[in-house]
Amino acid sequence: MSIRFVHETRPQRVRFGSGEAATALAEEVALLGAARVMVITTASAKAAADRITEGLPVALLHDDVAMHVPVEVADRARQAAAGHGADALVSIGGGSATGLAKAVALTSGLPVVAVPTTYAGSEATDMWGLTEDARKTTGTDPRVLPRAIVYDAELTTSLPVPLSVASGVNALAHCVDSMWAPRTDPVDQALAVEGIRALRTGLPMVVADPGGREGREHTLYAAYLAAVAFASAGAGLHHKICHVLGGMFGLPHAQTHAVVLPHVLEFNGPAAPAVYRRITDALGGSLPILLDSLEAPKALRELGFDESDLPSAVEAILPAVPPGNPRPVTAEDMTALLHAAWEGR
Amino acid sequence: MSIRFVHETRPQRVRFGSGEAATALAEEVALLGAARVMVITTASAKAAADRITEGLPVALLHDDVAMHVPVEVADRARQAAAGHGADALVSIGGGSATGLAKAVALTSGLPVVAVPTTYAGSEATDMWGLTEDARKTTGTDPRVLPRAIVYDAELTTSLPVPLSVASGVNALAHCVDSMWAPRTDPVDQALAVEGIRALRTGLPMVVADPGGREGREHTLYAAYLAAVAFASAGAGLHHKICHVLGGMFGLPHAQTHAVVLPHVLEFNGPAAPAVYRRITDALGGSLPILLDSLEAPKALRELGFDESDLPSAVEAILPAVPPGNPRPVTAEDMTALLHAAWEGR
Repeated sequence: MSIRFVHETRPQRVRFGSGEAATALAEEVALLGAARVMVITTASAKAAADRITEGLPVALLHDDVAMHVPVEVADRARQAAAGHGADALVSIGGGSATGLAKAVALTSGLPVVAVPTTYAGSEATDMWGLTEDARKTTGTDPRVLPRAIVYDAELTTSLPVPLSVASGVNALAHCVDSMWAPRTDPVDQALAVEGIRALRTGLPMVVADPGGREGREHTLYAAYLAAVAFASAGAGLHHKICHVLGGMFGLPHAQTHAVVLPHVLEFNGPAAPAVYRRITDALGGSLPILLDSLEAPKALRELGFDESDLPSAVEAILPAVPPGNPRPVTAEDMTALLHAAWEGR
Repeated sequence: MSIRFVHETRPQRVRFGSGEAATALAEEVALLGAARVMVITTASAKAAADRITEGLPVALLHDDVAMHVPVEVADRARQAAAGHGADALVSIGGGSATGLAKAVALTSGLPVVAVPTTYAGSEATDMWGLTEDARKTTGTDPRVLPRAIVYDAELTTSLPVPLSVASGVNALAHCVDSMWAPRTDPVDQALAVEGIRALRTGLPMVVADPGGREGREHTLYAAYLAAVAFASAGAGLHHKICHVLGGMFGLPHAQTHAVVLPHVLEFNGPAAPAVYRRITDALGGSLPILLDSLEAPKALRELGFDESDLPSAVEAILPAVPPGNPRPVTAEDMTALLHAAWEGR
């Protein structure tokens, strides 16, 4: 098979070290030559933020953060940055804190250093999102890509197990979908396979020992890879399905991923045998067995999806099937896939 | 084992497509908004250069190129760039052409688009080198990293098989050494493993069908990965040995790699079993068997290395053993390793 692709690498320094967030962050702020740092954090990450920013030239700590970055929230943060003469942004928290820092960077051009406390992965991409009147606008811009990421797995040990599993399975879905997404390339695939390996190792350890470092490290490392691969490869069939299930039927994001992913893997797999083998090799076994061991949800009906909604879901998904999916998707295929996902393993 | 690293990604667009060099190059030059392109090429790549730059706004074609970028050659190229008001550099050729474009970029800041015609890999790094009075100075600088690489495997089909194998085994050595080099990190390792996979696939195809596309594509893709991983990870034990053998005893670069690599792999392997398994899995079998099938040289004595020089080689290598090598290296170890390499498989 011919090798043909365009792959873009983006400039970012990734620091990874448990218990080293404060030191690493201080070094990154110093490298930027920043003298008036705006720290953006969420209530849940506030204690960690206070600890790891001690000694930094903090001009303001901003914790007016909300999910999906509502424009009003972005506007207030932008005004606060300007009003305090901030010369650098440090986000400490999950996707909402990172997303708000990106929104400020988008209009101000201020550099961002991201300190993630979940496995969301937004810190590794140049994608931004804003929500206005419940409508989400997204885009990509080099200004929003954090200059540096400070990964400290200890900041994620307080993330409850179910949330960790949900977030980790979301990363796993990013990896699997990256393998056959529209813009995928061999580099994306290599990173995604590495992410799958790390999640297969890390997630069971997180479940067995939630306060332990090692499982958290593997999961956090995988979250980085998943985000890099997915941002480059684009959304594949799995994410298109989950997007419809979440958007039209309000199903919970992460849980839906866990339910749908094995069905997409088995549907696409036979049409892309080499890719399928790489995924299953990296998983070191069966995806359903892995998900079971993580006590991930198994059926859409558990999540409140009604069987009678299947036809309209199929109708909404079909036009969204990505170009280049390993096999064509008929209404019958999608009905069977969703019905199996509804019924559960 | 704890995950702890710093990994830096650098901004570069990689375009990969056989037979597409002219189109891809035109797009990259247009993206730069360049109006006065300086094309740097070697005599052997001149015909290809003429063909793929047709229609570009070429201000000058410069083929005053030499191996290892002598400073006089660099100075002449820099003057030519300034004299013709060049606003972009396009290198078409192997490491010497890329190296000269980097030398011009280093002082002028002009953007580079690299079109490689060998498996040298320099196009994927921010490393530059200059030679003065037979002494090589090297460094890294973001200005010398090509903005884009245009990979077209058809430009490499005329590379003779022995040279292709030598260059490919050099890339393989970069990959293997990256697995345990001083600054290696998990991302480097994932890319290096992918490179090993691609070389194992590509090189035997190049030997079997030198004019064919597919083997060339895998090998060229691997050369890219090898360079990215190696530039990030640094030189490991293998390269330190080869550096001494080449520098002190004038042994040919690429052939020496092919002889020494299996010995280093077997020496370090048992001390880094997980890494060793990843390497051998990616190789899909034994390295000596692969090298035999490529008709790579097997013994230092074939390359003109004299047994009586072994002690002085060992003496020169020992202080250069990289920190963090999977196992310590005694004089006895190195003597045994080099003696085995001298004697041959």
